[in-house]
Amino acid sequence: MQEIGKDFMKLTKFQYLGKAPQTNGYPQPPLQKESDDGIKIIELPDPDHIHVRDMPLRRAIEHRTSVRSYSDKPLTLNELSYLLWCTQGVKEIIEDVVTFRTVPSAGARHSLETYLLINNVEGLEPGLYRFLAIGHKLLQLDIETNMAKEITEACLGQDFVKKSAVTFIWTAVAARMKWRYGERGYRYLHLDAGHVCQNLYLSAEAIDCGVCAIAAFLDDDMNELLDLDGEHEFVIYVATVGKNEG
Amino acid sequence: MQEIGKDFMKLTKFQYLGKAPQTNGYPQPPLQKESDDGIKIIELPDPDHIHVRDMPLRRAIEHRTSVRSYSDKPLTLNELSYLLWCTQGVKEIIEDVVTFRTVPSAGARHSLETYLLINNVEGLEPGLYRFLAIGHKLLQLDIETNMAKEITEACLGQDFVKKSAVTFIWTAVAARMKWRYGERGYRYLHLDAGHVCQNLYLSAEAIDCGVCAIAAFLDDDMNELLDLDGEHEFVIYVATVGKNEG
Repeated sequence: MQEIGKDFMKLTKFQYLGKAPQTNGYPQPPLQKESDDGIKIIELPDPDHIHVRDMPLRRAIEHRTSVRSYSDKPLTLNELSYLLWCTQGVKEIIEDVVTFRTVPSAGARHSLETYLLINNVEGLEPGLYRFLAIGHKLLQLDIETNMAKEITEACLGQDFVKKSAVTFIWTAVAARMKWRYGERGYRYLHLDAGHVCQNLYLSAEAIDCGVCAIAAFLDDDMNELLDLDGEHEFVIYVATVGKNEG
Repeated sequence: MQEIGKDFMKLTKFQYLGKAPQTNGYPQPPLQKESDDGIKIIELPDPDHIHVRDMPLRRAIEHRTSVRSYSDKPLTLNELSYLLWCTQGVKEIIEDVVTFRTVPSAGARHSLETYLLINNVEGLEPGLYRFLAIGHKLLQLDIETNMAKEITEACLGQDFVKKSAVTFIWTAVAARMKWRYGERGYRYLHLDAGHVCQNLYLSAEAIDCGVCAIAAFLDDDMNELLDLDGEHEFVIYVATVGKNEG
């Protein structure tokens, strides 16, 4: 109990792992969460046709910092589409087998889903959405509840969540990773979330946005707000985005 | 045992966390591992004076893929210095308190160390080294043992480890993160390693290099090769780098 971290690192060593479901002949979980829980589907602008400023990579890396204060300028739908592309964009798909994305993932398992708290994006009603990486669309989930307030509270009251233009909330669908890697997959889920968040930090700079990653949140509250059971799928990482001030 | 991943996610929720050492008044661990275990210290070229090709960020993100096959062209010391800068470079330091780096880290704890398996870098004897982020130097650790062979085996025989020009081996010094965040810090260590690895993938592209991340390794063997106890400090992520072929 006291040392669950140490136990986790120990018991996810190969010598303690059981046979993974794939090895046991179980079928592969779907590549993406179903879209039957949404109100409507919104087409996103095609990333190929979105022009963003040519930011030099090294400048983006060196300039990156965590930004917790934003102007009240909205993001455009093009800009949101571009950020989603850079963080989870599907470059290639082998039907029912694998996706290759703009980010790396252990064994190309790509077990993350991207939920969005939309506060201030042109053309979108504020509320909770989910990105459908396959198809590059948005699923509108909830525009009735005061999600900004609720999610801010679940992020320990960190006020810049509700002041962000959009907050990315990444969840892990554990089975997609565990199918091949078993319990060790929980390490990989976090590594993958780190890859994705780093791309958000960098790609946001090209559209004059600031980002702040949040890993301190009340898991149960966040999972409940997103209607997740917290075991098969759970919130793993969060990051706010907004236009830079001044 | 069977479900250590689920237990880990549960018991690192805030409601199960004890008071962190910082809250209990314990002193902060050092910002960087000591350098008294090395044979000699090697100055690295100043990143400010290293010119790399101006890679557009978006192209780097879209073009990224995992590369497991490399040419036998060496990396220059300038190129290695640049990769270390992009992955762990210290931009600012508040003595004994905090470092700010080119990558984000939970609470700027920066609990990772970078070990390098050098196989083919101009001006460096093959062997095991460690990066001293504060000071931007290399510490030579072992040029006697056949590290390339040993580390390749500990990476489950993935042959491209020994064929890489350099393999980055990130370790986590758990106390640096746990001091503030307790057991939940084990999540953050993995998220941080993901940030760092993503920057390696992207920055490598500007110097015509390919990268492949490796999270499947024999923990005990890797830790032993790096002379780590595997609890206070342990290998968390690995990535190979080499010049692209053709």
